[in-house]
Amino acid sequence: MFPRPSTSFPKMLNRTKLCQASVVGSNRTMSSSDKLQQQKVLTVDTINPNVLTMEYAVRGPIVIRAVELEKQLAKKESLPFPSVIRANIGDAHAMGQTPITFIRQVIAGITEPALIKQQPNLFPEDVQRKVASLLHACGGGSAGAYTQSTGIDLIRQHVAQFVERRDGFPCDPESVCISGGASESIRNVLKLFVRPNIGTGGQKAGILVPIPQYPLYSASIEEYNLGQVGYYLDEENNWALDMDELERALKETEHDVKAIVVINPGNPTGQVLSRANIESIIQFAHKHRLYIFADEVYQENVYAEGAEFHSFRKVMFEMGAPFDKLELASFYSCSKGYMGECGLRGGYVQFDNIDPTVYVHFKKMISAKLCSTVLGQVAMDCVVDHPKPGDPSYDQWLKEKTAVLDSLHKRAQLVTKAYNQVEGVHCQQVQGAMYAFPRFLLPDKAIAEAKASGVQPDFFYVKQLLEETGVCVVPGSGFGQRPGTFHFRTTILPPIDIFEDMLNRFGAFHKRFLAKYK
Amino acid sequence: MFPRPSTSFPKMLNRTKLCQASVVGSNRTMSSSDKLQQQKVLTVDTINPNVLTMEYAVRGPIVIRAVELEKQLAKKESLPFPSVIRANIGDAHAMGQTPITFIRQVIAGITEPALIKQQPNLFPEDVQRKVASLLHACGGGSAGAYTQSTGIDLIRQHVAQFVERRDGFPCDPESVCISGGASESIRNVLKLFVRPNIGTGGQKAGILVPIPQYPLYSASIEEYNLGQVGYYLDEENNWALDMDELERALKETEHDVKAIVVINPGNPTGQVLSRANIESIIQFAHKHRLYIFADEVYQENVYAEGAEFHSFRKVMFEMGAPFDKLELASFYSCSKGYMGECGLRGGYVQFDNIDPTVYVHFKKMISAKLCSTVLGQVAMDCVVDHPKPGDPSYDQWLKEKTAVLDSLHKRAQLVTKAYNQVEGVHCQQVQGAMYAFPRFLLPDKAIAEAKASGVQPDFFYVKQLLEETGVCVVPGSGFGQRPGTFHFRTTILPPIDIFEDMLNRFGAFHKRFLAKYK
Repeated sequence: MFPRPSTSFPKMLNRTKLCQASVVGSNRTMSSSDKLQQQKVLTVDTINPNVLTMEYAVRGPIVIRAVELEKQLAKKESLPFPSVIRANIGDAHAMGQTPITFIRQVIAGITEPALIKQQPNLFPEDVQRKVASLLHACGGGSAGAYTQSTGIDLIRQHVAQFVERRDGFPCDPESVCISGGASESIRNVLKLFVRPNIGTGGQKAGILVPIPQYPLYSASIEEYNLGQVGYYLDEENNWALDMDELERALKETEHDVKAIVVINPGNPTGQVLSRANIESIIQFAHKHRLYIFADEVYQENVYAEGAEFHSFRKVMFEMGAPFDKLELASFYSCSKGYMGECGLRGGYVQFDNIDPTVYVHFKKMISAKLCSTVLGQVAMDCVVDHPKPGDPSYDQWLKEKTAVLDSLHKRAQLVTKAYNQVEGVHCQQVQGAMYAFPRFLLPDKAIAEAKASGVQPDFFYVKQLLEETGVCVVPGSGFGQRPGTFHFRTTILPPIDIFEDMLNRFGAFHKRFLAKYK
Repeated sequence: MFPRPSTSFPKMLNRTKLCQASVVGSNRTMSSSDKLQQQKVLTVDTINPNVLTMEYAVRGPIVIRAVELEKQLAKKESLPFPSVIRANIGDAHAMGQTPITFIRQVIAGITEPALIKQQPNLFPEDVQRKVASLLHACGGGSAGAYTQSTGIDLIRQHVAQFVERRDGFPCDPESVCISGGASESIRNVLKLFVRPNIGTGGQKAGILVPIPQYPLYSASIEEYNLGQVGYYLDEENNWALDMDELERALKETEHDVKAIVVINPGNPTGQVLSRANIESIIQFAHKHRLYIFADEVYQENVYAEGAEFHSFRKVMFEMGAPFDKLELASFYSCSKGYMGECGLRGGYVQFDNIDPTVYVHFKKMISAKLCSTVLGQVAMDCVVDHPKPGDPSYDQWLKEKTAVLDSLHKRAQLVTKAYNQVEGVHCQQVQGAMYAFPRFLLPDKAIAEAKASGVQPDFFYVKQLLEETGVCVVPGSGFGQRPGTFHFRTTILPPIDIFEDMLNRFGAFHKRFLAKYK
């Protein structure tokens, strides 16, 4: 399914005259030892085999093709659609969402302090105050200095205060490590489970992940030679976690399961877990001694009536002994929510009940990466320590935040309704996060044709959708789905007018597709 | 040598009343199955063993202790010195170096475009031009959008143009991947060599690294279960690479050597390799079919008369066939040079002769990390595409750049001279980079006492230096050194007055130390 290198790397292959000349020359006179030396060190046969097999669909071949199509449109080439609509990735700003002014003013002030010095009224007083306190916390008073590997202490304190306010339980700043987005933290914690010496026959450390899941997990688990143990989410029950299914997954795996990943609100599935569901998961983790990864990056993105975000940490501590001693890593980010600052790369992991010696080694491990970006850390700071009522920036901050969340709310309702109106498409309610994961029926003829061309049926469908309409979504097989079912993930991020255009293009395509393959 | 968790993680251990209560309660009534369930999933026995054994001295126990001492001084506690002088890490801004205005203006403009909209004359015209073109290259015109995993195309083009100008050979933008500092790229390329299925007895892929080396390499090689194969640099020959020593290292190792790392200018050793030396290394890599890692992050930092930076790429292409087909990854960063923007996290790898299929998989692998920070990418852009003569920012940019490099030049001369004046200390000329790596003789009594307390003799010395004088340097054992020799790494970054203070504190300490242990 992966594109051939010849299309994705065209210029480098026939690049320097110098190299071409020497290839020709040496082919003529090459001895066998010369030939050996001409072989590359790194080839498809010698590369890390886990790098070879890992996949990351959110930036996979469909998206690579979408970029090509965009370039063709930019060159005014004729295509059957006027624009590519990128609904493949939770990238709010790329879809036109406006940044939160407070965040951007703070970062600009920290980057170029001369601005404030020269124009004391350039930014509101609370922005200036934050700039001053954060600069004071930077080495040499500059965003250009490395920070501790765990992040700037002041920001860790703000994170801990945020977590305390949210959960009603104390949180130690020392339990917080800031990272370049939540992804980096998730990958860092996964690494602790790696067994480098198991060989080919050994038992891998198993990680329970939801199916469908966000492919950061499957890709990283594969890269690190861990064992992915999938548990199916219950689609008909709005993608809730079913305890019998968790037990089944645990029972049937060959791996030595050590951890469970829960994504709440769900990606790609958009559900918001009930408190009761979270309690059951915690009981399950306790029963089987599992480390809990609580991926809570969408905690601000809850839309459905009656749905509410409950952090795993809060529920676990409220449940009391013996559950309150479970090992928990919870993840948050400045890339989602109302801020959508994906490009700034801010996020963190906050640990509870981690073994102190393990934590020392964790911090040592991340120290080899030096530190995450100061300006990303600052973005994360602005999320956990935002303007309060009475602060000069508060009104504008609240207005901007509310506008984004209200609009996402509208689109979440719209998308569910729109997909359910299409024949053979069924979409669960988007309760939270930024995605819908509609299920669609495929005619047997289409499935057969897909298989004949060696691709997954949902890939076959999504590829045609892209080529005919410019709508870019990700096939469900990139996230995992029950065998024989087909889905795709679409974001709810395109602005309303583009979003409606997208739904129209999709509806028309789907009708044509069914007619073609019925 | 690693600090005990009880000192480094004090607050979390006796933190929530809730947890303490439950620990007491369950200890009283615990059944054996309860006890099993109380054991942590991740302990020192179950953690990834390579995480346990990896070390990263630049942020190791000496530095952790220096931070503690700084906090004590901040609380006005009485210590035998008025300040901690951090000469442990190449962190120029933390030591007071002023940021380059052009870089900071461009980043501020990109972060908060409203500034330029509201005040069209806020920044010089060339800054505005760059801001506009980079914003145009960002998704949705915002620094908050993800970029391609390889980086913003426009910046990759600027990097390729920079490399072309530097080397005189064409460079394809497609061969460039931007990352969060050079470290991230180095780690990414190392990962390609990992053999996840070798088991305990199997042959690891070996990576030749200089000794002394920058511990990013030793730490990452250990973390990835690769095999470190050290080759000693020739101290008496100003840390040059000796070909016989390379052959020896290759011959004596148990690993299957696949790559060679060269750091030029050297870290921690400060040498600048001659063109002849680079040619010999390339011949060696060709003879033994080795992948070349050219760590050239200090390419702007060359001070010694007659010394000149030669990129591996340029030398390799100038040597022609068959050497010009060697696989080479070269690394650069915005953290060093005259800009010193460590905290912004910008860097890149540029590949030559990489197998196209391997490259497809490399790009897929990094795609699971989404992308590096946009503002770090922008910092890198400002380095490779800086103001030109005639641009409104040129004069100030040149003045600021020259001031930094001139001052580093002075300190490089000063440090060599100063250390060589101390009895029993010998320091090679600092030709480039930001470090000196002086060698010092230790009295037998000191060596014996260090061994008796279970630490390396150079650690023993450096720890006392810190405790008695506040001077923080890194023991040579963190970088590697010939057995029986002792060094430390010091940066040349403290400002001249602090630098002189540091040298004075060191000189007095060294005298006392010798007297104490003679």
